[in-house]
Amino acid sequence: MGEFELIRHYFAAAPCAQVRDGVPLGIGDDCALLALAPGEHMAISTDTLVAGVHFPQGADPLLLGQRALAVAASDLAAMGASPLGFTLALTLPDVRADWLQAFAEGLNLMAEQCALRLIGGDTTRGPLSLTLTVFGSVPAAQALTRSGARPGDLLCVGGMLGDGAGALPLVLGQRTAEPAVAAPLLAHYWSPPPQFALGQALRGRASSALDISDGLLADCGHIANASKVLLRVERERLPLSNALQSLLGLEGARAAALSGGDDYVLAFTLPPAHESTLRSEGVPFVVVGEVLEGQGVRLVDGDGQDITPLIRGYQHFPETP
Amino acid sequence: MGEFELIRHYFAAAPCAQVRDGVPLGIGDDCALLALAPGEHMAISTDTLVAGVHFPQGADPLLLGQRALAVAASDLAAMGASPLGFTLALTLPDVRADWLQAFAEGLNLMAEQCALRLIGGDTTRGPLSLTLTVFGSVPAAQALTRSGARPGDLLCVGGMLGDGAGALPLVLGQRTAEPAVAAPLLAHYWSPPPQFALGQALRGRASSALDISDGLLADCGHIANASKVLLRVERERLPLSNALQSLLGLEGARAAALSGGDDYVLAFTLPPAHESTLRSEGVPFVVVGEVLEGQGVRLVDGDGQDITPLIRGYQHFPETP
Repeated sequence: MGEFELIRHYFAAAPCAQVRDGVPLGIGDDCALLALAPGEHMAISTDTLVAGVHFPQGADPLLLGQRALAVAASDLAAMGASPLGFTLALTLPDVRADWLQAFAEGLNLMAEQCALRLIGGDTTRGPLSLTLTVFGSVPAAQALTRSGARPGDLLCVGGMLGDGAGALPLVLGQRTAEPAVAAPLLAHYWSPPPQFALGQALRGRASSALDISDGLLADCGHIANASKVLLRVERERLPLSNALQSLLGLEGARAAALSGGDDYVLAFTLPPAHESTLRSEGVPFVVVGEVLEGQGVRLVDGDGQDITPLIRGYQHFPETP
Repeated sequence: MGEFELIRHYFAAAPCAQVRDGVPLGIGDDCALLALAPGEHMAISTDTLVAGVHFPQGADPLLLGQRALAVAASDLAAMGASPLGFTLALTLPDVRADWLQAFAEGLNLMAEQCALRLIGGDTTRGPLSLTLTVFGSVPAAQALTRSGARPGDLLCVGGMLGDGAGALPLVLGQRTAEPAVAAPLLAHYWSPPPQFALGQALRGRASSALDISDGLLADCGHIANASKVLLRVERERLPLSNALQSLLGLEGARAAALSGGDDYVLAFTLPPAHESTLRSEGVPFVVVGEVLEGQGVRLVDGDGQDITPLIRGYQHFPETP
């Protein structure tokens, strides 16, 4: 048995790979099998992380395992899906037992936190990269797409914005901060909790949703395009953590929230009639703007003045030259 | 819009990415959605191909696109699944329009041949590699696993063996052959047709199945292990193409069939009662041995003498040092 075959057996023995409800067949055959309840659709998303592009070459393998699955699972949450399982395609330059053990531990921690089962994958030799494909189930007519926003809806987010982008210089070792500031930002960067509970609470209520990965403005652009509406974002209403404001100041924190990235917090549009229902259920969210007739995204200050900057995509991690 | 964003739009416009039956939502949202008929399970498999490890760095992109999907889809066929869709995670060192166009054309050719729809994926910058995750549907109790072989069953294969391994020196430019010999071998290497029709005909009949990727003996070992039986392979019954025998001679062709790789032909075990039924339906297959009580794999010659060689895995492509 080759060393890569051994790795496959190693992952097959991980707690998150043990077969449970909804997984008729797990790791070890030509295919895994997943079951769906009647009336459910399977939600599927694939994400690749490449060393030196999406994470530092020397990233802590436990943190990398946690983050890779969290980032992928966030797409399921944004669809309103319930978690089922995931496959891991892992390409490694060499086999180092300590690296693998720590990576699998991080992966398993997030898998258990999200109730996602490892159902299969592939392990190959090559430059370090990971591709995770995640699976969830969602009632057929209730998936949260990007295309249903309507004028009059509220624009909402599921939590603090900008912490992931604020953490990046700390991750890269470009700057330091006292532990009370650095710790919560780094925790969010390495282990952003997929907002499954929020996504499921939004089924049948939100008119559109996605997870913010490229900064609020760029991602609102996706909803605006798909729904053919104008999203008006109010700068004064952006939820910003104390840690982020301590690190970057108010203006820097706003910039991180608007044009940073790596938030993995849901953004969604909500018909006003559903606001009080969600509040009464204790679902946490923040209204940051509204949906208007028109096209695109507009940012306004406290006086309602248009201060829309150039909206551009976010580079998650400085690319290698 | 960055160049990688453009690539995503390019794939989204491919014929095989157009939404059809069974795909409620295709490319362009946080997740794709797949539907399953009542009583069906979702079969899922993931395969990664790394440049320089699983294919030559300079491989023809059209052939690479065809082969990558064919190899992944073969796992669905081996499960008895009907094709649904696939995701493509493509990592590219740079964006070259001619390469992408040819790759997408090859991918699309195989997708149309297999009735597999491109439902999503990711495109990233980095060393060239591809991860395909394929999806199929199979009636809940009829998936063809590796664990059901029973003593008395016939051991069968779905077609000629060894052509993929025979083609490898031609692919690598290590030797040449006249077109009548080279063409069929290279065609099988670059475009091995997934045996969906065979797999579906085996539902409810075969007691176990897999696709041969590491050579008949090594893959029979997987069935033997999972089913806790002994598989007896008769060397004289191996189906060998004329092209393979012309290139390698009889002994070389047998070695390629037994210990080569890249066949992507189904191997399965069949209770004898089902043999005539399959024959009457015109399902093509060849009996190459039988299932006995015991454990492992045994190779015998025409006189029934045990000639089992050391069974070892196959390196699909010489690994980079």
